[in-house]
Amino acid sequence: MANRVHNFCAGPCTLPLEVLQEAQEEFVDYRGAGMSLVEMSHRGDLYGEVHRRATALAGELFAVPEDFHVLFIQGGASLQFAMAPMNLLAGGGRGAYVNSGVWAAGAIQDGAHHGDIYTVWDGAGCNFTRMPKDEELQLRDGTRYLHLTSNETIGGVRFARWPQAAVPLVGDMSSDYMSRPVAWEKFDLVYGGVQKNLGPSGTALVFARKSAVDNAPQNIARYLRYDIHAKSDSMFNTPPVFSIYMVGKVLQWIKSNGGVPAMEKMAARKSAKLYRAIDASGGYYSNPVDPVCRSHMNVIFRLPDQGREKLFLAEAEAAGLVNLKGHRSVGGCRASIYNAMPEAGVDALAQFMDDFQGRNGG
Amino acid sequence: MANRVHNFCAGPCTLPLEVLQEAQEEFVDYRGAGMSLVEMSHRGDLYGEVHRRATALAGELFAVPEDFHVLFIQGGASLQFAMAPMNLLAGGGRGAYVNSGVWAAGAIQDGAHHGDIYTVWDGAGCNFTRMPKDEELQLRDGTRYLHLTSNETIGGVRFARWPQAAVPLVGDMSSDYMSRPVAWEKFDLVYGGVQKNLGPSGTALVFARKSAVDNAPQNIARYLRYDIHAKSDSMFNTPPVFSIYMVGKVLQWIKSNGGVPAMEKMAARKSAKLYRAIDASGGYYSNPVDPVCRSHMNVIFRLPDQGREKLFLAEAEAAGLVNLKGHRSVGGCRASIYNAMPEAGVDALAQFMDDFQGRNGG
Repeated sequence: MANRVHNFCAGPCTLPLEVLQEAQEEFVDYRGAGMSLVEMSHRGDLYGEVHRRATALAGELFAVPEDFHVLFIQGGASLQFAMAPMNLLAGGGRGAYVNSGVWAAGAIQDGAHHGDIYTVWDGAGCNFTRMPKDEELQLRDGTRYLHLTSNETIGGVRFARWPQAAVPLVGDMSSDYMSRPVAWEKFDLVYGGVQKNLGPSGTALVFARKSAVDNAPQNIARYLRYDIHAKSDSMFNTPPVFSIYMVGKVLQWIKSNGGVPAMEKMAARKSAKLYRAIDASGGYYSNPVDPVCRSHMNVIFRLPDQGREKLFLAEAEAAGLVNLKGHRSVGGCRASIYNAMPEAGVDALAQFMDDFQGRNGG
Repeated sequence: MANRVHNFCAGPCTLPLEVLQEAQEEFVDYRGAGMSLVEMSHRGDLYGEVHRRATALAGELFAVPEDFHVLFIQGGASLQFAMAPMNLLAGGGRGAYVNSGVWAAGAIQDGAHHGDIYTVWDGAGCNFTRMPKDEELQLRDGTRYLHLTSNETIGGVRFARWPQAAVPLVGDMSSDYMSRPVAWEKFDLVYGGVQKNLGPSGTALVFARKSAVDNAPQNIARYLRYDIHAKSDSMFNTPPVFSIYMVGKVLQWIKSNGGVPAMEKMAARKSAKLYRAIDASGGYYSNPVDPVCRSHMNVIFRLPDQGREKLFLAEAEAAGLVNLKGHRSVGGCRASIYNAMPEAGVDALAQFMDDFQGRNGG
């Protein structure tokens, strides 16, 4: 594919080219069945195999312990903002939330309607440029879980390591899913949309500790209960067939490329190249995040002024480096470099940054 | 495509072949952008055009009045079972539900957790072989809406005409969506999964009267509020890009083939052929549904005994007529003949039924 661009979109985002090509080939007539996979009964053998394989691979690659359910649930992380407290606080207790930026704020706003929750640490004080230290997380009595957003897509800030806390953690990992290992013993629930690291949009992937969710409240609709999704192996109702199929293919690609440990190393390497370009620019490019907490997925940076930012984005696009515009709420630039972003794309961007600075004043 | 079968699956189900082929062609490099549509920002121009066009076509083809929102929401009809009462009963009042079979029962079971609802008519008394008459729908004081399931996929029974009621209707139309016109003046809310008549699985399509939902309750998560989805044109969070894209293509196909009026006529013609084959078989094939209420989408039938049913299904499959097995909860046979099922498929099945009876005792 001659004209393929380097796509730094924050999500949906770049997927492995071979996955797209394989899906294209199989699309109209799936394995000689005389129909497309998206036309088949989700209870049939061919889709059943796809579904089970995606579920099993998610568990295997992420080293998920046996005592967790692996679930595909529609509605994105946003629906999880409601489901987490609905299910985990039904038996009482409170949820403590770290406000680390836009996505954490969403979890807090929505969660507050479905359980007794409070903000244990608020990043507004430092303009969301770092994550809290363990000693800043003073939990109140009766806290059932501590909710965190492992990586903030918009602020470009991440938890470099999982907090130490006296209660189980709940993590929204939408934007760094399977780019790093999870300390499962600390977590009761991990959730995230798949549309950044794991596939096209259309499903959330949820890992739920069985003992934490198997006595779900009986007084909410079945779709909102983890135990119902678990009992039916994520087929309580018609699953989003195409999304799960694609996630399965991306997971297979991750496996073939060394699994999560390799993704973690690659993410560290790729992000280091961009932060180096920023830090070596003598302030021409700037990133406000505490170096320890800098995201390995979303590298945000500004140029000296908005005029040059605009020019940078236009010239980058012309050079095949697309979707580098920062989120509309903060402006600036953002390079999202998820699992499927080839290292060559990052190299090209770092080189472009250097060249651009040379051409446009240092 | 030489080996293409006639796929009578109840959903997901057969889609127009040209839609599949077009999607395949565009899949890896969408309109020369150097990337797939599923890799693009949902806020970008190319997906934006797809999204707006699918939304506009849904409204146009279904003749939806201006005072309705047209929304794509993940979670299938099942999540709507919760959202309908959450949103419509927040200001008080009760929901009256017609129990017409498996899907209506689901709406009742889930809805009961999120509003004051009651069953106004229960089809269990007639084994779900007909829908209620208007005079059987005695609403209680304070009823805010009357909920119906326009077509029961498993029971093969449908409302032949919309009930007369003193309150607005709410309709789950998952299994006969856009195969017949809607009397919009009677409805406040129409919802359904798209994976039968309108595309692959992965989204529900919801039509909500603005005046009924624009003062949605503030005390539930944003994902569960129709007004939030409406304000963001179904982009409150990352939409299920591929599903909506495919729905847009199927809608275009419906438009090119005469729109909903043509779909309605074709459904009447196709289903009549199968009911004729059943009724002309001298009891060899049987269908329990009151003729007035027989579904135009899901034609259920039994053979004289289970042995011959098994043989029928096996021989039909060998003849390229697949997925004719009835739902596991009821057994027997079921031919789902949604919009995209070609009339030739129905003709082939009717002929096969006749031949099979000839070979296997009449």
